[in-house]
Amino acid sequence: MSNAARGAETRQLILDASMDLFAQNGYDATSVAEICQRAEVSKGAFYHHFPSKQALFLDLMASWLQGVEGAFRMAGESASNVPQAFEDMAAMTGQLFDALEGGFPILLEFWRQASRQPKIWDEAVAPYHRYLDLFAGMIRKGVDEGAFSPITHPDSSARILMAVAMGLLLQASFDPHGSDWEAVTRSGIHLILDGMRS
Amino acid sequence: MSNAARGAETRQLILDASMDLFAQNGYDATSVAEICQRAEVSKGAFYHHFPSKQALFLDLMASWLQGVEGAFRMAGESASNVPQAFEDMAAMTGQLFDALEGGFPILLEFWRQASRQPKIWDEAVAPYHRYLDLFAGMIRKGVDEGAFSPITHPDSSARILMAVAMGLLLQASFDPHGSDWEAVTRSGIHLILDGMRS
Repeated sequence: MSNAARGAETRQLILDASMDLFAQNGYDATSVAEICQRAEVSKGAFYHHFPSKQALFLDLMASWLQGVEGAFRMAGESASNVPQAFEDMAAMTGQLFDALEGGFPILLEFWRQASRQPKIWDEAVAPYHRYLDLFAGMIRKGVDEGAFSPITHPDSSARILMAVAMGLLLQASFDPHGSDWEAVTRSGIHLILDGMRS
Repeated sequence: MSNAARGAETRQLILDASMDLFAQNGYDATSVAEICQRAEVSKGAFYHHFPSKQALFLDLMASWLQGVEGAFRMAGESASNVPQAFEDMAAMTGQLFDALEGGFPILLEFWRQASRQPKIWDEAVAPYHRYLDLFAGMIRKGVDEGAFSPITHPDSSARILMAVAMGLLLQASFDPHGSDWEAVTRSGIHLILDGMRS
């Protein structure tokens, strides 16, 4: 194996081990030493790939949320109109919930810690602001196209859609079998679209 | 001072000190020893009033959420119809946000820990289920009274309203000045009510 391939493999071992440990014990309670032990790599190897546990988490978060964002953007571009694009995005949540459910409480734990550190805070919440911008842009387009009422406020409505997504992820992560969360999400997006139309 | 009055005062000192410390350092990172030091009480006095840190937190949570629930139930009873009751509840969120904003991330941290302990989990999420029942009951009444469309699903819509509330609290707690959260909440409830009417 080349050095580059070995490096990529080590990096992946660290990412996999940290995901397992974060899911099991949470972000705060997981140490770099434990990650190294689980991944069977040295601390030197860890710090060669990641300057800190925070940097590792930002990396995990970025690849996790970029996947969702990519799927959402594709839905936005392939739908024939804006309400349909939102319905398509809601219909995807079945797969997304499985991926996001376990990760969401860990993301919240990380945010809680990062909110006290201005240096990493902007990077920590960057995906949140990108989703807000994506939603607000789509709503603005829907208003321009006449699909939504002209009194619809894009920024405020984007925050409400984001609230539905976050609030349902939160309930699903604490009560996975309490409801058919995919159906509830579709119906929530539907209610809000109906509200924006009227 | 009587023994009973002294006991009540000690209890309140412990509650106040723990609120400060939980808000400052989070739930996990706060120890009983620190709470005793801040409250200037002995460990013996602490355990006389609370069997554990978890029991103390459940007590804090109960008094915090019961206040909100009481205000919500009053709004439900004094409004002339169900949509108006929801609008009145949304109009209260200004005061409630101030009270809940700081506490919500700590509640989430506690839930995360409690979710691994079946013994306390039911008690930890009891207020969540009471809110869901309150909302679902109001929606059912609104459907019966003809205010909401007959295809409205009370349980699913209650979870969506809960999602809006939780998702906005979450955004407000991480980004308090990012928006006029009271106005966004009113507009979110409004959108969903419009959706349930159509």
